[in-house]
Amino acid sequence: MSAPTEGDFSSVRTIGIVGLGLMGGSLALAIRARWANVSILGVDRADVIARVLSSGAVDRAATEAAAVADADLVWLAAPVLQNVACLRAIADTAKHPILVSDLGSTKLAIVEASRSLPAHVTFIGGHPMAGGAQGGFGAARADLFRGRSWILTPDPSKPPATAALSRLQRFASAIDAEPVVMDPAEHDRVMAYVSHLPQLVASGLMRVIGPRVGADGLAVSGPGLADSTRLASSPARVWTEICQTNAAPLGAALDALIADLQQVRHQLDAPDAMAAWLESGARWRSQLPHTTSQASGADRVD
Amino acid sequence: MSAPTEGDFSSVRTIGIVGLGLMGGSLALAIRARWANVSILGVDRADVIARVLSSGAVDRAATEAAAVADADLVWLAAPVLQNVACLRAIADTAKHPILVSDLGSTKLAIVEASRSLPAHVTFIGGHPMAGGAQGGFGAARADLFRGRSWILTPDPSKPPATAALSRLQRFASAIDAEPVVMDPAEHDRVMAYVSHLPQLVASGLMRVIGPRVGADGLAVSGPGLADSTRLASSPARVWTEICQTNAAPLGAALDALIADLQQVRHQLDAPDAMAAWLESGARWRSQLPHTTSQASGADRVD
Repeated sequence: MSAPTEGDFSSVRTIGIVGLGLMGGSLALAIRARWANVSILGVDRADVIARVLSSGAVDRAATEAAAVADADLVWLAAPVLQNVACLRAIADTAKHPILVSDLGSTKLAIVEASRSLPAHVTFIGGHPMAGGAQGGFGAARADLFRGRSWILTPDPSKPPATAALSRLQRFASAIDAEPVVMDPAEHDRVMAYVSHLPQLVASGLMRVIGPRVGADGLAVSGPGLADSTRLASSPARVWTEICQTNAAPLGAALDALIADLQQVRHQLDAPDAMAAWLESGARWRSQLPHTTSQASGADRVD
Repeated sequence: MSAPTEGDFSSVRTIGIVGLGLMGGSLALAIRARWANVSILGVDRADVIARVLSSGAVDRAATEAAAVADADLVWLAAPVLQNVACLRAIADTAKHPILVSDLGSTKLAIVEASRSLPAHVTFIGGHPMAGGAQGGFGAARADLFRGRSWILTPDPSKPPATAALSRLQRFASAIDAEPVVMDPAEHDRVMAYVSHLPQLVASGLMRVIGPRVGADGLAVSGPGLADSTRLASSPARVWTEICQTNAAPLGAALDALIADLQQVRHQLDAPDAMAAWLESGARWRSQLPHTTSQASGADRVD
C-alpha cells in the first residue's frame, strides 16, 4: 500500500484505461512503474491490445463496459469526441461509485457531457501537457509526464468534488507531473493559443512552403524550419476532434495571428518598427518553460 | 599543404573574416581545425576581438582595410547590410587580386552591390544553412556547418568565375558542408519561405500568445510551443536587415500563409476538410531534412 503523499492509491485496486496510444499507453506504464499492486484493464482495438498485453503494460484486455464494471478509476485516453461518447456510455453502464477522468486536449465539451452522469459517477477532466509528434503505443514512455503540467478542470457548475480532485492531484504529483487546476472554458481558451494555434500554424507553414519551393527548396532548409513545423507531423484524427471541440476560441486565436502578420507584412522594410516587433516576440518567448534542452541538430536554445 | 580534394587551399596563406559572431566565429574555428597553416585575420569590435584572440580562433586582429590588403580570401560575416557596406569599401581598398564571399541570409542585395567591384576583386555570395537561436562568438563551434547545405550564388549577369566557385565548393566540402549552387534571386525567394517566413511566424506567435494568456498560461505550455517558437529568440538586428533586403519575396510568403490560415479558420468544425488540410501539411513535412534528432524535452520527431 502506498503512503498518502505518494498518491492516495491505497483504496485503488483496479484502473481502467480506454485508449492505449501514446497518452494512454504512457499512463499505463507510469502507473505500472509506480504502483506494482494496481491492476490495469486496457481497452482498445484487438491488434493494439495484443501488443500492449505482450509488453506487460496492462494486466488484461477489457471492453469499455467491463472496465467500468471492474475498475475504481477509469481514464479516457482516446481522441476527444470518442472520450465524450465513451463518457455517455458510462452513464448507462456504471453500477457502483467510480471516478472517471480523461487525457483529452479540450475540456469544455466533455465537462458539459459529464453533467448528465448519474450521481455515483464522479468525472473530473484532465489534460497532461505532454505528447510527441509520433503517436501510438510504440512511442509510449513511463516518464512522458515527468515535469509537465497536469491540468485538472473540475466542473464549476457542480458542488466541489474535493476528495476526487485531491486524489487526482496526488496521483499527478506521484508520477512527477505538476497538477494545475483550471476552469474548463479558460483551459480551452488558453490551449487555443499555447497549443492549438501552433499546431495549425505548423501545418499551414508546410502547406504553403512545400509546393512553392518543392523538394529542392526543402532539401536546403535548415533545422529552424524542422523545429518550427515539428507539430505538423501530429496525427490528423486527434487534431480534427480538437478543432471541432474548440472552434470558437481557436478561430479567435487565428484571427489575432492573422492580424499581427498583416501588420508586419507592411513594415518589412522599416527597421525600427521591425526591431520593436521582433524584440517583443523575443521577450515573451523568454518566459516559456521547456526551452533549455537540445533542439534539432546544432541549434541549442537558451 | 592540403590535397586538392580537401579544398584547394594550397595557395591560400591568409584568410580575413569580417564579423566574429556565431557564423564568422564558427567559420574561423572550422578553418583552424582543418588547415593548421592558414593564418586568420579577424575584424570586429575591440571587445569581441579580445575574446576571440584569447580563444586562439584567429591569429590577429585587423581593420577591414588591413584584412583586405593582407588576405587572399575574405569572408563577410556581419549582418547583411553591413556586409554590403563592407563590400563597397573593399572596392576602394583592394589593390591585388582577392576572392570575397559572405555568409549572409539574403543574396540579391550583395550580388547587385558586387557589380561595381574592380575586375581584380572576385565576389561570390554564400549562405551556409546553419545557425542557432543564440548568437555571438560564445555559441560558435567548429562543426556548425557539418552536414548543412552551403549555398553559393554566382552572379548570373557576369561571366562564370569558374575557378573561384570551384574553390568555394571544395572549401565547403572540406569542412563537411554540402555545397549547392543557386541563382541569387531564386535563393532569396526560396529563403523567404523556408527561413524568413518561419522566423516571422515564431515571433508573431509569441507576440499574439504572450499577452493573451499571460505568465500563467505560458507556464502550462508544453514543448510544442517552445520548439515552434525557438526562432523568436534570434537577434533582432540580424533579422531587420534580412527583412529589409528581402521584403518583396517575404511579403508574398506572408500573404500565402495568411490566405491559408484564413481558409482553415472557416473549416475548424468540418472534420473531413480539416483532415485533408492537416494531412497535406504532414506530407510536405515528411520531406524535410534535419527531423531525426532530439527535439525539446520528451518529444522525439520521426
